[in-house]
Amino acid sequence: MPVVGVIGGGQLARMMHPAAIALGVELRVFSEESGSAAKSATTEIGDYLDFDRLKDFCQGLDALTFDHEHVPTELLEKLEQLGVKVRPGAKALIHAQNKLVMRERLGELGLPMPHWASITSAADLETFISAFGPKIIVKTPIGGYDGKGVRVVESIEQVADWLENIAQFGGALLAEEKVEFIAEVAQLSARNPSGEFRTWPLVQTVQENSVCSVVICPAPKEFDSIQAEKIARIIGQGLGVIGMLAVEMFVTKDGRLLINELAMRPHNSGHFSIEGSVTSQFEQHLRAVLDLPLGETFSLAPHAVMVNLLGVNQTNNFVDQYPKAMKEFPGVKFHNYQKTPRLGRKMGHLTILGDNASEIQRLGLAAREVLYRAE
Amino acid sequence: MPVVGVIGGGQLARMMHPAAIALGVELRVFSEESGSAAKSATTEIGDYLDFDRLKDFCQGLDALTFDHEHVPTELLEKLEQLGVKVRPGAKALIHAQNKLVMRERLGELGLPMPHWASITSAADLETFISAFGPKIIVKTPIGGYDGKGVRVVESIEQVADWLENIAQFGGALLAEEKVEFIAEVAQLSARNPSGEFRTWPLVQTVQENSVCSVVICPAPKEFDSIQAEKIARIIGQGLGVIGMLAVEMFVTKDGRLLINELAMRPHNSGHFSIEGSVTSQFEQHLRAVLDLPLGETFSLAPHAVMVNLLGVNQTNNFVDQYPKAMKEFPGVKFHNYQKTPRLGRKMGHLTILGDNASEIQRLGLAAREVLYRAE
Repeated sequence: MPVVGVIGGGQLARMMHPAAIALGVELRVFSEESGSAAKSATTEIGDYLDFDRLKDFCQGLDALTFDHEHVPTELLEKLEQLGVKVRPGAKALIHAQNKLVMRERLGELGLPMPHWASITSAADLETFISAFGPKIIVKTPIGGYDGKGVRVVESIEQVADWLENIAQFGGALLAEEKVEFIAEVAQLSARNPSGEFRTWPLVQTVQENSVCSVVICPAPKEFDSIQAEKIARIIGQGLGVIGMLAVEMFVTKDGRLLINELAMRPHNSGHFSIEGSVTSQFEQHLRAVLDLPLGETFSLAPHAVMVNLLGVNQTNNFVDQYPKAMKEFPGVKFHNYQKTPRLGRKMGHLTILGDNASEIQRLGLAAREVLYRAE
Repeated sequence: MPVVGVIGGGQLARMMHPAAIALGVELRVFSEESGSAAKSATTEIGDYLDFDRLKDFCQGLDALTFDHEHVPTELLEKLEQLGVKVRPGAKALIHAQNKLVMRERLGELGLPMPHWASITSAADLETFISAFGPKIIVKTPIGGYDGKGVRVVESIEQVADWLENIAQFGGALLAEEKVEFIAEVAQLSARNPSGEFRTWPLVQTVQENSVCSVVICPAPKEFDSIQAEKIARIIGQGLGVIGMLAVEMFVTKDGRLLINELAMRPHNSGHFSIEGSVTSQFEQHLRAVLDLPLGETFSLAPHAVMVNLLGVNQTNNFVDQYPKAMKEFPGVKFHNYQKTPRLGRKMGHLTILGDNASEIQRLGLAAREVLYRAE
């Protein structure tokens, strides 16, 4: 049976497991801790910076893939030299790890994105603020997610700490124009080593406090889904992506799409596909990294809505509210990552399929309210 | 988190695992052997006839349920006396374990079934053959499945070995009229301890050599789905079933439904529901045994077809044919139970959703052909 290894024991690795069980693929997760969200498939617990452990973990794998983007490129290149099938490969993954490398490459490919600059000094930043301010965005190129490593900035002082320690960010920060957008969308796609490429319908994402809150599939049809698919295809081919690729984009008032972020793994914006699509992003990721033919991606209902469950305190794991929520919402699909509750933590999600987008969104938010209110 | 224990490590326990992962339910499987189909959730390996092991396994479970019907009633009753939530309970499960007990109880409930008799001697059998022969069916009341423990009989000699050893079958055999049927159907339903009851659409089952080969959802509409649902409801309530109930029935030339077999667990005729229904039989079973409210059961496509993958020899595990089959059939869902190949063994299944029942059946059979032909 094919064997896929995953570095990282979060909810993305967790949700690969059901897909692996269906296909008869053996999944092995290298997790940072026992009791992680992916514990049902965890075979190794350790530090992914420990190369010897990593190397041992890769014995017998048909492909190595990821739950997150944090494994340093140097380690991945060393694994590749040993013959490990790292998917996506280090050369592709660097674009999801380092936002400066990503911006540069997307520029070469002629793709639309916010104005940006590599900032190595206070003077650079001042120039950028005067050109695109008063408010601009500054990001650390490496290690940011869910709003971490991102600041809205009007003056140099607001990132003085980052500028002082700029060496620890690789010697440069990323400055970006603060885009006036009317919506955010995400284009999911998958690509395998044979070059086969498939996309899902464009989805709309709604963020709250820089964290994904709601995903609506498909996005309203006035958004340019043809352009979105074209962008994803160019990135997939241009960067040599293997596996899932999520392209998050802003929609501007005049309808243009500007690329915000990339992820080369299953992504929060694709969780709806577990129930909503004939092939989920998790199954597709496994097929792609194993160089199996990709599955069709058509929707099983006219509309799907995904609602994230974020921790509300340190005690509510949402399970005690199952009886009430399941009774009131028998058509809602519940996903619980079995994480220790913590305020704001991604603890699970809900998916609802139906004929009417606003009705299922109302249902999803109402079901979330029931789960959020411990009694 | 709720904890469900399952006795038996077959494909039914295996397919409960993805549903458990989604809900955040901990699944623990008591398996007969290492490397079983349910190995991803196996926490104990041993003999389920060893009561002390069983008792230990039940520590900390919110519910105990089953992959098969082979655990003796006496052991289950002892567990119940210790406070274990055995679901379905021993009093209900006996009807799925012992076909004579089942026939008697269905008779009391006034439900339609083939003519039958309890046979304790050659003379009994002779009487039954002269009343309903020339050909009749004789079954061992306990332990039969997939055609095992079932014989088509014209004379006493054909079951002489069973009659001689009748004590080992509890002192009686079951004789049944050989029904002339035009089709076979199955009604799936679920019931929780609070008495909530839900059904799926009636499905048609096609057997080959007494083993399920193809399931078509929904069954052709000329079959009496209203009567089927009524039968399932009476059985569910009358027998106090908890969890999944599959009622297999013959359809006679004049359109009557006659009950053939019962199963109180997820059943081969319900595998289509993994992709085909908003709540799968595996998720529903977990909800029911935990006394959680049941999920809706509507279909996500007009038609679903399930095709069983039976072993063709001792080497083909169907995985080597994935590249060809997935390329040709990108909409087919592949399920592989990771069993050691053996002729006729249930090794996996395929599911196809679509608008046209005969077209998806053709696709499913063609995909199976590709998997069956090793190159």
